Amino acid sequence: MTYCVAMRLDAGLVFLSDSRTNAGVDAISTARKLTVFEDPGDRVTVLLTAGNLAISQSVRQILAEGRDDKRSLWTARDMFEAASVVGDAVRQVYKRDADALRDAGVEFNVSLIFGGQIGTERPRLFQIYAAGNFVEATPENCYFQIGEAKYGKPIIDRVIHPAMPLDEAAKCALISMDSTLKSNISVGLPLDLLVYETDTLRVTRFVNIDERNAYFRMIRDTWGQRLRQVFGEIADPEWDAAAPAEFPLARAGDGDRWGQPVRARRERARGEG
Amino acid sequence: MTYCVAMRLDAGLVFLSDSRTNAGVDAISTARKLTVFEDPGDRVTVLLTAGNLAISQSVRQILAEGRDDKRSLWTARDMFEAASVVGDAVRQVYKRDADALRDAGVEFNVSLIFGGQIGTERPRLFQIYAAGNFVEATPENCYFQIGEAKYGKPIIDRVIHPAMPLDEAAKCALISMDSTLKSNISVGLPLDLLVYETDTLRVTRFVNIDERNAYFRMIRDTWGQRLRQVFGEIADPEWDAAAPAEFPLARAGDGDRWGQPVRARRERARGEG
Repeated sequence: MTYCVAMRLDAGLVFLSDSRTNAGVDAISTARKLTVFEDPGDRVTVLLTAGNLAISQSVRQILAEGRDDKRSLWTARDMFEAASVVGDAVRQVYKRDADALRDAGVEFNVSLIFGGQIGTERPRLFQIYAAGNFVEATPENCYFQIGEAKYGKPIIDRVIHPAMPLDEAAKCALISMDSTLKSNISVGLPLDLLVYETDTLRVTRFVNIDERNAYFRMIRDTWGQRLRQVFGEIADPEWDAAAPAEFPLARAGDGDRWGQPVRARRERARGEG
Repeated sequence: MTYCVAMRLDAGLVFLSDSRTNAGVDAISTARKLTVFEDPGDRVTVLLTAGNLAISQSVRQILAEGRDDKRSLWTARDMFEAASVVGDAVRQVYKRDADALRDAGVEFNVSLIFGGQIGTERPRLFQIYAAGNFVEATPENCYFQIGEAKYGKPIIDRVIHPAMPLDEAAKCALISMDSTLKSNISVGLPLDLLVYETDTLRVTRFVNIDERNAYFRMIRDTWGQRLRQVFGEIADPEWDAAAPAEFPLARAGDGDRWGQPVRARRERARGEG
């Protein structure tokens, strides 16, 4: 599996991906899932991929080889057109592979996050589906996740907002990744982190993070430790012995409604019967 | 969907479930997913259910009606046998419904958590699958989740241990639920929380938690707020301008290995070619 997350902030874009790939638990290896298509001074676009690795590698290959095509990431006039180019690449792979995959009982499964900036247009961020269609991030919904997204979603939901500075958002993405790494063995180091600052039109902040990265080690240690501390500081529940609770209890089949709390205990039910 | 979690601690058991059920987003309602089978002084067993509501309600009905059967939750000599009784009930529903569900294109989808204490045996906790088979919680793996489990897993993984006091574990379960509620609209209030203390052999701590519950409101407010505070206290990453990073960059199709970081930028690639 994979976990990738990207955020669109007022100040720019943040992209983070893990690098674990597996075909069953006995076939685990490392694959980069972040690719940069850069023409410094003119455009920076970044692709994150999850799902079937053969499909996502084919998509990247098509996009990279398309440099001399009429419609390509290098010629697209804006990010919407660039996202269409990516969607078309997905559809091209679908045409080529989907029948054979279906015959093999394999789903055509790929999902992508694609973002960047072209010329004077503001930075934009898209999630692209296996059908080649896509949606765009908005101020109300300023991030996308693909792959094993659920573990790392709560922390993002609690802190992110479009006015957040880029490096703080990068920290948020790394904590989200840390929670995912801790709870799911199919997501693994190293990580690729790219932070794009609006109007730079080139990549200035990119890092490949492995076990030796001091900042990520600090995040891993500190976040868990501080979380446990906050957890310890919150009061435990207290039970009011004077107010016995009513709970859904099984009685003999006498028409209980399971959707409702059942008030009688077993003895009472028997006494009634 | 559903989120249920149960924990086996040295001091007893904790069970927590939400109550949202939906068949599509336009058919959302409330269904209790926690059922108690109690014979005070002799046994307390608790069932949590997730998956197809028709299946899980049938399972509960069979278990409740089985009171006079030779093999039932009321006669099982120990928790292992009781878990088998639950597994058998799942298989009975499978026999009755699976063909019709398959014809309708619906998967036979149900998962259960079942735990409790019978007589002098220690409390035990099981996860029961749609095939009626089951696994037991151990000190190394002392909790089970069913339904929308991923959002609330990281916090449990970070704090839980078998020696944790019961009410602290209940707090952990509630925080895990809060994270899930915040990130997934298919999980909803009210909650059923049951805390079982070893050797009481009756239910003494049960509460149905809705929006008005002061403790859960405190959890919701405090946890999010303290999380944001801790987040703010952790340093943002700093970038070393003197050490430009190497990143996976798309070049023309000249044999780049996508699994490796690509060192050249576009210009250099062109210069080389």
